[in-house]
Amino acid sequence: MGQEIERKFLIKKDIWKNAAKGKASYLKQGYISTDPGKTIRVRVAEGKSFLTIKGKTEGIARAEFEYEIPIEDANELLNLFASNCIEKVRHEIVYDGKLWEVDVFSGDNEGLIIAEIELNSIDEKFTLPAWIDKEVSGDERYFNSNLSKNPFRKWEVES
Amino acid sequence: MGQEIERKFLIKKDIWKNAAKGKASYLKQGYISTDPGKTIRVRVAEGKSFLTIKGKTEGIARAEFEYEIPIEDANELLNLFASNCIEKVRHEIVYDGKLWEVDVFSGDNEGLIIAEIELNSIDEKFTLPAWIDKEVSGDERYFNSNLSKNPFRKWEVES
Repeated sequence: MGQEIERKFLIKKDIWKNAAKGKASYLKQGYISTDPGKTIRVRVAEGKSFLTIKGKTEGIARAEFEYEIPIEDANELLNLFASNCIEKVRHEIVYDGKLWEVDVFSGDNEGLIIAEIELNSIDEKFTLPAWIDKEVSGDERYFNSNLSKNPFRKWEVES
Repeated sequence: MGQEIERKFLIKKDIWKNAAKGKASYLKQGYISTDPGKTIRVRVAEGKSFLTIKGKTEGIARAEFEYEIPIEDANELLNLFASNCIEKVRHEIVYDGKLWEVDVFSGDNEGLIIAEIELNSIDEKFTLPAWIDKEVSGDERYFNSNLSKNPFRKWEVES
């Protein structure tokens, strides 16, 4: 088992793009279970596929189990079990020695951009880039499992 | 993806034991999801562990995806997610060229014995051994996922 410790932020759209010079990759993922106590995700990215089980989020940490699976299985699992897939382009940006993953969503979550940083401990210090805006780590609406059920474009219509 | 085509039977306890001369192994398994549309099982047997996702049962067939996982992960997944484990000793018996798996349950399902045969097609013909009793393929109470929630010993008390 691994443990995932992660913080999430919205970004300042006008200035972050100058920073996005690193690797970018397209990701598609769906959920076999979106139960907050046990999310089960299937992700396809760059010809590799993973089945990932995550436990209950406690603060910014949660248990994580990840297994690589054949891409044919991933596509079949998504077709059979995941009604709504999330699609996004992930940009990798190294800032002050730490990797930031900036997810630019498309499809039903078009317009949403989230920056994530993975930490080695809950209280690890790190430097915030200038393009970082409000923290949303604890806001369940931004959980990818919830974005698959209640996508960002629906919020905009409702608000 | 594989497809699992399986028929299940109760057995005549007094005569089946003479047939059980083959391999026997202890199995422990629990469920991360018991949703009938997508059961997610963790099984530990003879030092190997598997994560198995099964789709909705249609008649006697359903989609099946199985991945071997580290035994440490299996035990952690069972501890974290599977409230009730099933324990059984599986006896393998070859009869007229087909493999029968006879599961002798223990723990909360003590007293229950089920014989299963896996088929290559829905209408495959096979010979019933003398120790086979009533078919229970369609009886959801005998699904292992349901036996983890509503074990056999509880039925006996209720009936």
